[in-house]
Amino acid sequence: MSAIKEKDKKYNLHSWSAQNKVDPIVVTKAEGLYFWDENGKKYADMSSQLVNSNLGHGNKAIIDAIVEQAQKIPFMGPAFAMDCRADAAEAVVEATGFKGGKVFFTNAGAEANENAIKIARQYTGKLKIFSQYRCYHGSSAGAGMLTGEPRHFFNEPGGPGFVKYDGPYAYRAPKACKFENEDDVADFYLELLENQILYEGPEQIAAIWLESVVGSNGVLIAPVKWYQGVRALCDKYDILMVADEVMAGWYRTGKCFAFMNFGYEPDMITFAKGCTCGYVPLGGVVMQEKIAKFFDETSMGCGLTYSAHPMGCAAAAATIAEYKNEDIENKMKVTSKVLADILDGYVESHASVGEVRHIGLFSAIELVKDKETREPLVPFGKDPEGIMPKILGMLKADGFWTYSHENMIVVCPPLTITEEELREQMAIMDKVLDSVDQMI
Amino acid sequence: MSAIKEKDKKYNLHSWSAQNKVDPIVVTKAEGLYFWDENGKKYADMSSQLVNSNLGHGNKAIIDAIVEQAQKIPFMGPAFAMDCRADAAEAVVEATGFKGGKVFFTNAGAEANENAIKIARQYTGKLKIFSQYRCYHGSSAGAGMLTGEPRHFFNEPGGPGFVKYDGPYAYRAPKACKFENEDDVADFYLELLENQILYEGPEQIAAIWLESVVGSNGVLIAPVKWYQGVRALCDKYDILMVADEVMAGWYRTGKCFAFMNFGYEPDMITFAKGCTCGYVPLGGVVMQEKIAKFFDETSMGCGLTYSAHPMGCAAAAATIAEYKNEDIENKMKVTSKVLADILDGYVESHASVGEVRHIGLFSAIELVKDKETREPLVPFGKDPEGIMPKILGMLKADGFWTYSHENMIVVCPPLTITEEELREQMAIMDKVLDSVDQMI
Repeated sequence: MSAIKEKDKKYNLHSWSAQNKVDPIVVTKAEGLYFWDENGKKYADMSSQLVNSNLGHGNKAIIDAIVEQAQKIPFMGPAFAMDCRADAAEAVVEATGFKGGKVFFTNAGAEANENAIKIARQYTGKLKIFSQYRCYHGSSAGAGMLTGEPRHFFNEPGGPGFVKYDGPYAYRAPKACKFENEDDVADFYLELLENQILYEGPEQIAAIWLESVVGSNGVLIAPVKWYQGVRALCDKYDILMVADEVMAGWYRTGKCFAFMNFGYEPDMITFAKGCTCGYVPLGGVVMQEKIAKFFDETSMGCGLTYSAHPMGCAAAAATIAEYKNEDIENKMKVTSKVLADILDGYVESHASVGEVRHIGLFSAIELVKDKETREPLVPFGKDPEGIMPKILGMLKADGFWTYSHENMIVVCPPLTITEEELREQMAIMDKVLDSVDQMI
Repeated sequence: MSAIKEKDKKYNLHSWSAQNKVDPIVVTKAEGLYFWDENGKKYADMSSQLVNSNLGHGNKAIIDAIVEQAQKIPFMGPAFAMDCRADAAEAVVEATGFKGGKVFFTNAGAEANENAIKIARQYTGKLKIFSQYRCYHGSSAGAGMLTGEPRHFFNEPGGPGFVKYDGPYAYRAPKACKFENEDDVADFYLELLENQILYEGPEQIAAIWLESVVGSNGVLIAPVKWYQGVRALCDKYDILMVADEVMAGWYRTGKCFAFMNFGYEPDMITFAKGCTCGYVPLGGVVMQEKIAKFFDETSMGCGLTYSAHPMGCAAAAATIAEYKNEDIENKMKVTSKVLADILDGYVESHASVGEVRHIGLFSAIELVKDKETREPLVPFGKDPEGIMPKILGMLKADGFWTYSHENMIVVCPPLTITEEELREQMAIMDKVLDSVDQMI
């Protein structure tokens, strides 16, 4: 074992793991799409780390901004105004298009959701918060109560007022559902949701949370009609609509924010990851003018030492400028189409591929034992035989780095990936899926 | 209004504030003890920002490490091993002296406490967590449930299992208490605590939390016997003892960690702030070997995108080295004594100073209307006439920057402050306290 790995394992605890099973790659170099381990092996970062390195590794403009801020003033408390803080706030709010909106900055996505919960409750004076099964909003206590997948078990027992609803997932909808088209899917899930609003009492519901595209849980893209329907329900019952854009935001779906694909505007968004590409931690909550104005005279019950950290703000201002300078929104149109076509092809060519879902460069491959029954390759919440790690291992052996969730493999390369790079990597995926076909 | 301030107020929400009352200083330069506003006015940072800039502003060694890491690899996900990650983990664990201990890194102190709650519950299989009134552990939902002062109201209703106890605060102990000495104080609060343990059921209590020195709530230093007594109760009833060292840690009290002043060892510590001086966000949980080993074969239910962020880790390794290179522990002995003598003198010389508390360069001045009755200068949780802001304003006018909490003024300069700088600033405090004496 190398000295770095040995020291790492001796002192450092890794997330979501039994530590004896952790065998970390020691990374010594990273550039563009790629990173290298200490033995010189090269990997393509086909998950953009945890779907945050949207501009790839080693972006010079972001690094230069970080260096400049470090050498100027790396830290001042959140009570002070600073150029980088004001610039980042302006860039973030303008990116959302929320006229008169404001931002409250946090360290990351979980904390963004933590603070959005408090803001929603303070603004509305109501308790209940709706969020989806099969969603991930973070793992601190508040964000964990929003989260609707097994990682939230570690936050149990949570607090009162957190209610889970079913979001659209046509591929695994109840068997009785006969859907002719996307509108049918939207109608079914909207009916479920409206019933649940009435059962829980609209006058008690502060906010309905959603991931504008469900990320970690397999890139679940709802029909346009559903998003607009939730917006209409929120308006009808005077409930805030909060879109978690932590993973889907910052051009991952092809638009700056995912909600922009679906013709609605939420009342608040939470963001993180792509706003700095993760080069320095930063997240936050952007709220519409009506909520921002509420805090003109009412003290906002939110605060943290590193709110609007100058290093994060400098990185964010540079990153947001870089998305525009590199014309990411236009450039990724080609690669998004290439990825979509390749993935769609897998459904035909691979017995183990039940469904693929993609929007922009945000995609997942859902693996099944049987296309007819749609039985997942591994049961929900379990993988006793370690099948998914085995598949990831095959990809990794060929230098394709990504991660899985349940029976799904994430494909979310940096938005700067070239068509050639993408085709080269997806050929590896194609080959590995051949092996998966053999396994079932 | 300057362009920066205008932009800041237009887009950015400030912590714990009604935004119309926010009039932020625009900071354009910071070095050593001082920072400057856009008009060139110079302030001494007598609170080390939020008690985090322990080595002052512009420390070159930390900045160089940040720059180097940014130019090398600013981010890799927490699954990977990296030199900076291993080095920071080693430096942090070795600083605690926990033989066989390990660290789980977070972005900041609130998240450190969030994860320590989950770890304590997972390790013990028990639910209840004890923490103190008049303590602050953060404002996300979990950390907020630990917090025992008014800022936690915004997290209500919290979750089940959070129990508050009274920690030592001799100056405001119940009037029936007749204390002859520190041991009497310890005995009284230990008796209260043991009763409460029995009433709540020791077999249900996962952990007892404490700030090793209560920070935000006025530098409340418990008697040595009390800390050791809590340790003994935890051993007796098989309860984990968790010390929040977020503010008190990293030499603030004169020792690397505050618990080292009191002859006991906690089972876990949470830390942040001083570990990087806040130059880049970083926090974490250090646990003793028995807890670390528990996660060898059991999956730890904790995770976040930015766990062990390379930029934070690089900053931490450099900061911890810098504390040693600058021989902070020895150097601050002189200034700590100077500060103690000056503050002790205030109790004699100022009618408004009820009590001063200090350890290392961690201190608070508690203001009263009347020394006999000990009536606080402002009532608990309220300051309708804005008396404390007025006092801070007088200090600020003379270039002395700090903050207050309830009826207390914090004095926590960078640990690098010289005796001359300290005396110069405390002369300003002395003058302002003369004015406060006139107010009562």
